[in-house]
Amino acid sequence: MKKSNTRFTRRRFIQKGVSGVAGVLAAGTMPGSASAGSETPASWLVPGNGFSNYGQPRDSRDSPIRWISADRSVPGAGVSWTPLHDLEGIITPNGLHFERHHNGVPDIDPDTWELTIYGQVDKPLVFDLNALHRYPMTSKIAFIECGGNSNSLWHSKPSQAPAGYVHGLVSCSEWSGVRLSLLLEEAGLKPDALWLVADGLDAAGVTVSIPIKKVMDDTLVALYQNGEPVRPENGFPARLLVPGWEGIVNVKWLHSFQLSDRPLMSRFDTVSYTDLLKGGQAERFTFEMGIKSLITSPSPGQTLSGPGFHELRGLAWTGNGLVARVEVSADGGKTWNEAALQEPVLDKALTRFRAPWHWDGNKAILKSRAYDSHGQVQPEREVLLANKGSNVYYHYNAIVSWSVNSDGSIHHIYT
Amino acid sequence: MKKSNTRFTRRRFIQKGVSGVAGVLAAGTMPGSASAGSETPASWLVPGNGFSNYGQPRDSRDSPIRWISADRSVPGAGVSWTPLHDLEGIITPNGLHFERHHNGVPDIDPDTWELTIYGQVDKPLVFDLNALHRYPMTSKIAFIECGGNSNSLWHSKPSQAPAGYVHGLVSCSEWSGVRLSLLLEEAGLKPDALWLVADGLDAAGVTVSIPIKKVMDDTLVALYQNGEPVRPENGFPARLLVPGWEGIVNVKWLHSFQLSDRPLMSRFDTVSYTDLLKGGQAERFTFEMGIKSLITSPSPGQTLSGPGFHELRGLAWTGNGLVARVEVSADGGKTWNEAALQEPVLDKALTRFRAPWHWDGNKAILKSRAYDSHGQVQPEREVLLANKGSNVYYHYNAIVSWSVNSDGSIHHIYT
Repeated sequence: MKKSNTRFTRRRFIQKGVSGVAGVLAAGTMPGSASAGSETPASWLVPGNGFSNYGQPRDSRDSPIRWISADRSVPGAGVSWTPLHDLEGIITPNGLHFERHHNGVPDIDPDTWELTIYGQVDKPLVFDLNALHRYPMTSKIAFIECGGNSNSLWHSKPSQAPAGYVHGLVSCSEWSGVRLSLLLEEAGLKPDALWLVADGLDAAGVTVSIPIKKVMDDTLVALYQNGEPVRPENGFPARLLVPGWEGIVNVKWLHSFQLSDRPLMSRFDTVSYTDLLKGGQAERFTFEMGIKSLITSPSPGQTLSGPGFHELRGLAWTGNGLVARVEVSADGGKTWNEAALQEPVLDKALTRFRAPWHWDGNKAILKSRAYDSHGQVQPEREVLLANKGSNVYYHYNAIVSWSVNSDGSIHHIYT
Repeated sequence: MKKSNTRFTRRRFIQKGVSGVAGVLAAGTMPGSASAGSETPASWLVPGNGFSNYGQPRDSRDSPIRWISADRSVPGAGVSWTPLHDLEGIITPNGLHFERHHNGVPDIDPDTWELTIYGQVDKPLVFDLNALHRYPMTSKIAFIECGGNSNSLWHSKPSQAPAGYVHGLVSCSEWSGVRLSLLLEEAGLKPDALWLVADGLDAAGVTVSIPIKKVMDDTLVALYQNGEPVRPENGFPARLLVPGWEGIVNVKWLHSFQLSDRPLMSRFDTVSYTDLLKGGQAERFTFEMGIKSLITSPSPGQTLSGPGFHELRGLAWTGNGLVARVEVSADGGKTWNEAALQEPVLDKALTRFRAPWHWDGNKAILKSRAYDSHGQVQPEREVLLANKGSNVYYHYNAIVSWSVNSDGSIHHIYT
């Protein structure tokens, strides 16, 4: 790491503060005191609204929403994006978790629902929802990221959409459920049980093949998301959580697990979720999501209100261990400074980073660069393209650059 | 701790499994394969539902809801309870966070909203929402508990309501916002600034007095809850998070902070949130929530489906450090066994505990007992009553007992 840039120091924030941001109260004015000439807040004069059984966000056009990109030729095929640029912290509220469906959201009747384990097992088993609830549970705060997240950055022209509508096919929840290994131990794995073929109850019949080692290591049959039962749009009554692996293998609306000596080579194993490299070769079964980061504030569509102190805020994540370090640059990568990581930093969860920055009002280029606990670092875009070519569709994880203009506007650029 | 009871061992679970819970699949039957006589799932035959900008839970009468206990004599006064008995993990989804309002939920216009700091400061300041967003932020996963949570247990007859509708005035979220100390440092505290008097914009004009030390230690002006802007029902646009301290001081819909050399002695400092002890004395400014725990599953209203393996699941929390240990008993407290604490165990957050239990089908009495990191232990009910008397209304934190009958039904008892 190069020498620290003094524009980033905490000390600088303490010295300079956010001066000029807060207004100074006129002498003698008491807030809300009618006698001092201030207005009595209107909300003090009438009772507020009542209670609800299930709460909702503020009904306002400013409230964060998922942007929907739907394929009109296939009902229920498309995505909805988590508005990362409007959010803080690491938990995604359930109503804003990204969705990627291939043929819509089925409504599964929990009373008749069954999950079957068959194939290379000693004893094929069927579980209903009550049966699953009898098993020991575990919880894990984890991100799920679509393999195709950020894929517009493979294109030659940088997208100017808000950050979440380009990179927001990643979200982070606390998932609770039953370790799949417990169910498979009860069924009894035969020596040939090298792959798990999981399928879902959606009309697309999503079917994927997962190596047995990952299944036995840390895969969950998730029944709860952020405390409450998994919602239909996220796989009710049960979905897979395969921590750190691309979204497609986190199968929703679980139907069955077939144990097999080989992958099924379903269309989701082959036609989709396969990366065409330069030279015509393809990478298949590219499950693990790479080390990645993003400055979410400021970001395109936002405007800096003026020179002075600004906090750079963003998210980092990796499918391979923990986020170990994030660095930020305001000069297009000439110098880098370490950002603070918000505790708790959790395995295969989103990690929030923050860094103080003093903007002098001139043009600047903001970047973030994340390192995982195994020493892997997020590549520059030109390095990623040199390695992979430009026919790839999935697994884009290069460093992202925002250009800050002197009027405070922010644009996405390639550097 | 007395000798471990073998009914609780993990080994016992492995040996016995949940046998009889899963069904065995008939030979030759393939799930969803029409040729083998199984039915093709209906959801494979028609496209599912489409996307939404903001997601919702399943529309079903089985979906968890907050129970509302409203005071009909005062509009918007009452509580809504988090259904702890229906939830898993430690995060409460925003739609199920408990609410306690004294005169309803105001809808505050963020464009005209201001937060004022005045009184014993060098420079009184006014912040609008944009100004607050300019300050460095921090996040904390923390519980908020109403001082009156569990207060029906001061009564002589044990409530038979579901666990969350008795103990669910506690919820846990990831809160993000600005450290109040940063704003106060900018205003400049005078030596006499020993108390912070915070008031809210609700029609009840909730106003509380908080010692300056706690304010400077870890109090947040929270702008986000579980990632998204704080909802109106939880204090939009800004509320206090005073980690581990009773709910009332976590003022919602913030209006102003007055720095003072003394507490205001508002009605919320005195008439309410004061504990009348035996002998006629009262405890005031009892801010810190005590060490507490609860088995949420099984719990009243639920029925054990039969003898054999069951996992005891519950929550523990404390306003004083971390939850260090939770023990469970199935024989009314004669023997205790240590429960597993779900990682991450976080300061002033809910902590999920789980313990395996083999039910022999006979009558049993389930209890949980939590210890904090300072060695404090949750008291038995009779000890709490002996210490505090029975005129108290707030801060009930005694050990809770569930009676399991041989038919599998669960009732709340005092022991």
